[in-house]
This record gives sequence, structure tokens and C-alpha cells, in this order.
Amino acid sequence: MESQKVRTAFFAAGDVHIELLEPTSDESPIIRFLEKSGPGIHHIAFAADDITGQLALAKDQGARLIHEVPFDGAAGKLVAFLQRKSTFGILTEFCQPSH
Amino acid sequence: MESQKVRTAFFAAGDVHIELLEPTSDESPIIRFLEKSGPGIHHIAFAADDITGQLALAKDQGARLIHEVPFDGAAGKLVAFLQRKSTFGILTEFCQPSH
Repeated sequence: MESQKVRTAFFAAGDVHIELLEPTSDESPIIRFLEKSGPGIHHIAFAADDITGQLALAKDQGARLIHEVPFDGAAGKLVAFLQRKSTFGILTEFCQPSH
Repeated sequence: MESQKVRTAFFAAGDVHIELLEPTSDESPIIRFLEKSGPGIHHIAFAADDITGQLALAKDQGARLIHEVPFDGAAGKLVAFLQRKSTFGILTEFCQPSH
């Protein structure tokens, strides 16, 4: 994923998809995570049927949005993230197939 | 769960179960996690049909076991954990319905 400077690989474990992330540049958003915490769980993602509605609901419930508008993520999905400080330290993503 | 000094609550998200953990004592195993890292993802668990075989396989593949023998966990399951230093910083559990 050139825009995020990461290489990704997906593995299925039942209905769950495990995504491995590898930074491809020192400017990758996940470099700081690795430097601070080392390897580990970077985020969790929930599939959404209506990502825009889900973001609005999360905002209503007190979550702060990193992305007010979803963008094109890996694997042909629309994605958006919530600020981890507002989600009990867990970086949280919503994703929705974009077509 | 008196033996582990935690209170648990389970929520279903599709086939995934999200388990909330709250320490009930300063001697709870998760107190240190909270003190060090704050709230966040404590571990991930994979359902196993044959937890003993799965532990042996993980050991063969280089994981170090916290529990060589599964024990009774929450929600009527047999559980065992792998050492996070041997699993890329991710505390990993296997669980199997015990009856």
C-alpha cells in the first residue's frame, strides 16, 4: 500500500482476518508504533455495512475520529480510524468493501 | 473468575468474542499489564478443536508455553497461553470448550 508505506499480508482465521503490516519506509505511520512498543497488535478492525453511519454513531458515543471521511485502504476497502485515546487505548478501524 | 482475580464480560461481534477483563484484586495477573500499558488489548485467543495438539504444534514451531497443561478458564473452556516474547509481542491463548 504505497500511500501508507506498508506492505500487508492477510490470513483468514475463521471469519477473522489477520493482517500483517511491515513498514516500507521510515515515514510509514507504523514505524513509531514499532519503535515505541515493538511488534504486537497494532489495531483491530470491525467490518461495517455503512461505514459513514458507523463513524457518526461512534462520534455520538464519544469516540474521536482520526478520519472524518473514509479513504481507500488495503484489499479494496473503505477504511477510517478512531483515536486510541478515545477507545481505551485500542486503535480501532472500521472497514467496508468499497464496491 | 476467582482463581485469576478477574471479572469478565463477553460480547459477540460476528464469530468473534470480545472479552472485557477487570482485575478484582491487586494480585490479579492483569494488574501489571494495566500499570505498564494502561487499558488496551491484553491478548488474543484462538479456538482449538484439540488444545493439547495445538500446544504441541506451537511448541514445535518455536513458541514457548506459559502452560504446558491447559487449565479451566472462563466460560467453561480449557485454556493455555503462549509466552508473548515468543509470539511477536502478542500474548496468545488457545481455548477449547471443556465439555
